[in-house]
Amino acid sequence: MIRINENFNKLAASYLFSEIRKRVAAYSAGHPGVELVKMGIGDVTLPLPQACVSAFSRAVAEMGVAETFRGYRDDEGYEFLREKIAATDFQKRGADIDVSEIFISDGAKSDSGNIQDLFARDIVVAVPDPVYPVYVDSNVMAGRSGAFRDGRYEGFLYLDSTAANGFVPSVPAERADLIYLCFPNNPTGAVVSRDELAAWVEYARRNRALIVYDAAYVAFIRDEKLPQSIFEIEGAKESAIEIRSFSKTAGFTGTRCAYTVVPRECVAFSGKDEPVSLHALWSRRQNTKFNGVSYPVQRAAEAVYTDEGQRECRAMTDYYLGNAALIRSAFTAMGYACSGGEHSPYVWVNTGRESWEFFTLLLEKAHVICTPGAGFGRCGAGYVRFSAFGDREKIGQGIDQVKAALRA
Amino acid sequence: MIRINENFNKLAASYLFSEIRKRVAAYSAGHPGVELVKMGIGDVTLPLPQACVSAFSRAVAEMGVAETFRGYRDDEGYEFLREKIAATDFQKRGADIDVSEIFISDGAKSDSGNIQDLFARDIVVAVPDPVYPVYVDSNVMAGRSGAFRDGRYEGFLYLDSTAANGFVPSVPAERADLIYLCFPNNPTGAVVSRDELAAWVEYARRNRALIVYDAAYVAFIRDEKLPQSIFEIEGAKESAIEIRSFSKTAGFTGTRCAYTVVPRECVAFSGKDEPVSLHALWSRRQNTKFNGVSYPVQRAAEAVYTDEGQRECRAMTDYYLGNAALIRSAFTAMGYACSGGEHSPYVWVNTGRESWEFFTLLLEKAHVICTPGAGFGRCGAGYVRFSAFGDREKIGQGIDQVKAALRA
Repeated sequence: MIRINENFNKLAASYLFSEIRKRVAAYSAGHPGVELVKMGIGDVTLPLPQACVSAFSRAVAEMGVAETFRGYRDDEGYEFLREKIAATDFQKRGADIDVSEIFISDGAKSDSGNIQDLFARDIVVAVPDPVYPVYVDSNVMAGRSGAFRDGRYEGFLYLDSTAANGFVPSVPAERADLIYLCFPNNPTGAVVSRDELAAWVEYARRNRALIVYDAAYVAFIRDEKLPQSIFEIEGAKESAIEIRSFSKTAGFTGTRCAYTVVPRECVAFSGKDEPVSLHALWSRRQNTKFNGVSYPVQRAAEAVYTDEGQRECRAMTDYYLGNAALIRSAFTAMGYACSGGEHSPYVWVNTGRESWEFFTLLLEKAHVICTPGAGFGRCGAGYVRFSAFGDREKIGQGIDQVKAALRA
Repeated sequence: MIRINENFNKLAASYLFSEIRKRVAAYSAGHPGVELVKMGIGDVTLPLPQACVSAFSRAVAEMGVAETFRGYRDDEGYEFLREKIAATDFQKRGADIDVSEIFISDGAKSDSGNIQDLFARDIVVAVPDPVYPVYVDSNVMAGRSGAFRDGRYEGFLYLDSTAANGFVPSVPAERADLIYLCFPNNPTGAVVSRDELAAWVEYARRNRALIVYDAAYVAFIRDEKLPQSIFEIEGAKESAIEIRSFSKTAGFTGTRCAYTVVPRECVAFSGKDEPVSLHALWSRRQNTKFNGVSYPVQRAAEAVYTDEGQRECRAMTDYYLGNAALIRSAFTAMGYACSGGEHSPYVWVNTGRESWEFFTLLLEKAHVICTPGAGFGRCGAGYVRFSAFGDREKIGQGIDQVKAALRA
């Protein structure tokens, strides 16, 4: 008899964004004609940079001609793209990352969900709270948790990210083996300092643990003193993997391209305590279960690294940061404590109420969609996340509607 | 301490095609100037259909304009594509498959590797021998096998596909829970009759097992009496999942698009023997670990279903089938027993020698690359796979070189 993976049964409710979609759809069905302002999901709205569109189009045309057609390709991705990434995103910033350490993929969600394939089932997983649900859910599915009780899975080590620690968790007293960190953070918008990150790297080395560092929002950092890559920290290469995406950097949410850096020095340990190269393991995993990213998409991503592409991406992230500043200042003016919105497209607002209640209030009274913080974890209770990925005018209108609704 | 998934250590040698690449690279490095004829890996060579290129380009242009830009999308894929698939690939052939049962993905390799996520660790997995390595390796990584000994993993049920059974394994006397079938077969080129497939569906229903049916090569079937989808068989919807790809159908190996059909009736069982919907489970898995296929790629795939697209795809597969017929007739004329090459782009040749030895002979003496059958399993020993995905003239030349080398 074919048995299911019973770990799926442990998953609490459904995936946050599906749940929001359902509730919004239900509201819209009951209120035809009401236009909702989307300030919830972190989906970009500005078009692809023209540099990317041009490169994308040229590559599509190549696919229609026998001489330039491309079929399968090594699953690590095209070197033309990996070279630009290594040079621009790492070497230029003093992070000694080689082309061969970069694996192109179809999305940060895939990589952050799949990376746990490489590890034993009985490791201790540490996740921030609040947290991007994929880190948690992928480990629940793999059987690394106990039951879900009071908003948390037994067996995981939760790293509280609260106003008290500026939403940057300190290293815990307990030992964890696999640690997920995300900065600039989704959902809190918090950024990490070089010293704070160095403390985590030191923790990982001391405990022979591994950090999965999600830097999907790195393009929003405007302070040169802040670290962009964990590999800017001394000693990180043995103990960290970094995940990045073109989704927020260059508007690729519908185009799909990301990458993961697995340094050659990076290791995990066998049952006999021998170090094993995670580069070789990830390569094997990807070669077996993945067949690479569309060639034209990789060309589009390459164009991000042209002068024009860099200028356009900067203008795009500047625009979103302008939106974020608007949202943050509006809520601050209304008396709410806010984090994020600087070096980050997310504004994390302490609503003083239950998250889903505030979500429903805004949906029904202000016709604005936000993301309930409780969906990201217990420490998200009472918060909501606003996303700056929208049209400036609509966001302005949304803010006005929120102001009116909250006054009413 | 971060521990690796020790199941990776059980994986025998490296992935077949990586191994071939390495050996070919080593030969080429030692023999600069020697041009090799690639008749091994199943990678298409003809350009994308013009219908697909046009649709692909139009969609790329849309991504550069705010009004038509697309970001994230439900992970099941766009309905415009799923509707065409449901109507053309299934309903038209009497298979009652609904739009909601189709999940668009980036490749059949991803889906066939990931599908086992849904099942318990202690199920019995049945795989054909010879076999596409992904079915096996993904289950080894998940811990469903014992050690690798004498060319096989302990714990798997191998379904011998030999000349004696026409390379279509009969249902076994033993019980298996998860069964992988692939027709037209990779690597043997064998096709399954409706009665043979019905026997497998009956077996699955009787044993409450599940069939994962890989129909990636369906576009090469020319005999209307042969089943194209397992869902043409009565009762299959409760006990089968089907995986298809645009890679071989429409030359998408470098463009990346595929789909998996999970009927709503399809079930596996909980520890309490209760049926659980695999549709819901796969949806949850994909929502958690996958973020959909590039919008322009989905538009390119949609164009496969236009009249022009259908004509072009037919012409393309006809061309490859012409190559296959050439290869098959040449080896038959040289006295080798062949299967496949009809309704399939693969010709499976009994070489009368050890596979890798024949591979090396052809590489060194004929400058032709084939795929050693032994890489697909114990029953592949002595065989090699030729692929018809090449240029007609080059294949002709390769055949001449093989003839000369084997006479020498």
